[in-house]
Amino acid sequence: MEQDCIFCKIARKEIPARIIYESDNSIAFLDIAPATRGHTVVIPKVHFYNFLDMPVNLMKDFFLDVQKVSKLVLEKIGAKGFNLIQNNFEIAGQIVPHSHIHIIPRYENDKVPQFSKDPDQAIPEKLDEVYQFFQ
Amino acid sequence: MEQDCIFCKIARKEIPARIIYESDNSIAFLDIAPATRGHTVVIPKVHFYNFLDMPVNLMKDFFLDVQKVSKLVLEKIGAKGFNLIQNNFEIAGQIVPHSHIHIIPRYENDKVPQFSKDPDQAIPEKLDEVYQFFQ
Repeated sequence: MEQDCIFCKIARKEIPARIIYESDNSIAFLDIAPATRGHTVVIPKVHFYNFLDMPVNLMKDFFLDVQKVSKLVLEKIGAKGFNLIQNNFEIAGQIVPHSHIHIIPRYENDKVPQFSKDPDQAIPEKLDEVYQFFQ
Repeated sequence: MEQDCIFCKIARKEIPARIIYESDNSIAFLDIAPATRGHTVVIPKVHFYNFLDMPVNLMKDFFLDVQKVSKLVLEKIGAKGFNLIQNNFEIAGQIVPHSHIHIIPRYENDKVPQFSKDPDQAIPEKLDEVYQFFQ
């Protein structure tokens, strides 16, 4: 798995990437299929599948790196905002089986779709029904 | 600001919400305009604008809470995957000026749009041009 993982290969510098930041724990590079100009992917160097598997000891340092890279991207690219997106499991759009976060800089009139409410779910009775699962 | 902030009011229990998880640092509740069934918002109890302002001392505990809530939502709702989404600044869709993360459970044939590549940006020369900003 880790042997063949494309993000592990990027972290080991076995395949090239446009790396814009690196720390002991993380590496950030430009997405080759960007949703917008400056779209960046941040990965932990160690291999695990997704956010649910993230080890406790990485939690602080990894997200500090994501914060640093977000600031760097805004500053260097001149964008006025960004989305953080993490797709977890295939049904959510996770393609590469190595945990990663997308930083998507945003611009006026860009083509990023906004997720919006599902009118079928935005009903108090429906919400109460869902809420009951947690009681 | 904090006096009038709707998420601060939820954290102080001054206005009701369908709270599904609470810790010393965080509170999670069902979004009243859900993109999918079980759409949950996780917020730090302290007020700050967005991810860029997140204090170092919260980074570990907050994201551990997000991890716990993600597992809870999948388990209780029976979804097979989820997106984490944080909109930072108005241009990125941030409406409430109190930092928050969306957990969006995903289902077959749900209505959540996938962000996809912008063909105008997914060109090696364009990527090299962007990369130069970071050198």
